[in-house]
Amino acid sequence: MTFEHNIEKLGLKLPTPAKPAGSYKPCVIVDNLAYISGQGPLMEDGTFAQGVVGKDLDLETAQNHAQKCGLAILAALKNEIGDLNKVTQLVKLTGFVNCTIDFTQQPLVINGCSDLMKNLFGEKGVHARAAVGVNSLPLGFSVEIEAIFQIQR
Amino acid sequence: MTFEHNIEKLGLKLPTPAKPAGSYKPCVIVDNLAYISGQGPLMEDGTFAQGVVGKDLDLETAQNHAQKCGLAILAALKNEIGDLNKVTQLVKLTGFVNCTIDFTQQPLVINGCSDLMKNLFGEKGVHARAAVGVNSLPLGFSVEIEAIFQIQR
Amino acid sequence: MTFEHNIEKLGLKLPTPAKPAGSYKPCVIVDNLAYISGQGPLMEDGTFAQGVVGKDLDLETAQNHAQKCGLAILAALKNEIGDLNKVTQLVKLTGFVNCTIDFTQQPLVINGCSDLMKNLFGEKGVHARAAVGVNSLPLGFSVEIEAIFQIQR
Repeated sequence: MTFEHNIEKLGLKLPTPAKPAGSYKPCVIVDNLAYISGQGPLMEDGTFAQGVVGKDLDLETAQNHAQKCGLAILAALKNEIGDLNKVTQLVKLTGFVNCTIDFTQQPLVINGCSDLMKNLFGEKGVHARAAVGVNSLPLGFSVEIEAIFQIQR
Repeated sequence: MTFEHNIEKLGLKLPTPAKPAGSYKPCVIVDNLAYISGQGPLMEDGTFAQGVVGKDLDLETAQNHAQKCGLAILAALKNEIGDLNKVTQLVKLTGFVNCTIDFTQQPLVINGCSDLMKNLFGEKGVHARAAVGVNSLPLGFSVEIEAIFQIQR
Repeated sequence: MTFEHNIEKLGLKLPTPAKPAGSYKPCVIVDNLAYISGQGPLMEDGTFAQGVVGKDLDLETAQNHAQKCGLAILAALKNEIGDLNKVTQLVKLTGFVNCTIDFTQQPLVINGCSDLMKNLFGEKGVHARAAVGVNSLPLGFSVEIEAIFQIQR
């Protein structure tokens, strides 16, 4: 049983990981922690989902975008460590939701990513988390999520 | 002398800690670090304080809410490690203030939590910190604060 | 060859580091990680640059402010560890851009800091990163950036 097999069983697919952007990169490992850069909702066609939750996007769509952020996080991690079975614990997610001032369901949005992690990794995927709203994100992303994993070295 | 005795001496009380929410939980420990999920201002009646600082709430009220976030952080930590005397250092606080675009006293707001930590833990409570404004928080929280502690294992 | 010599070669100068503010401080070290508090754009005259990107400030100015945040980060780190040659890896930057809701070039803004780090530290300066927009920052800062470094002990 592998975590990557779990992704398939959920009917999902890891996207092509983001490329290093010159001065920063998608994943940095220090000791047994892997820090994943903030990932946007990378869609299957290679574009990023955009929009303001509470205005352009409803909750369900935003949850799906958060799940896409989660898949992009996993792709970035796999690209660095080679095998998701090396994950011993998802430590922390921080989720930023591009939203209106009266939208207050950020936790439900970020559950799209959190639930993915629990579904894939089981108890090792149950993490600490912060979810907040913001007034703007890069390229108009609807959601951006960063992560810290504990891994085997 | 215990840190928990210090809480009483300040006339404060730890709230009932937040419960794990399925895919994430209030505290994750990895090696000697405890990551605490973003906590809202949990009031004594079990509700969370809401409002926009600079519009609905003044500075003093917001500082009190930040202190409540701090107590919720400590409750989450104690629930996981059993005894706050195991804290060897508060490493980092990140504070998000739900505010208007012309409110710029986020550091003074988050001092409500930072000062609590210093008062309880002394030099071990002096931490690194970021304080920022945001346009919306979960459930309408006025303040949300996350933390990283170094602890004895 | 020293990293500090590199700063001079770029025609830049470390500012006087921020002072501990009572309950928190600019740099906390735990094991081999240095957590740097969120730093604003500390200008050469000792003031902080203010303004909203997309309204008061253009991209190029904001990039310069992000570079100033980076110099303030390095000053805080050097003040704590004494010698920037002890840096073994810049692990993570988190950049908050004070911006309008239609400004979506946060990554380009934060490159002002990221590129500085790469220029100074080479591959050790290539880091994980998140860049987000926010509706307000302390004292009206245009940009605020926090950092985690791995260092020799």
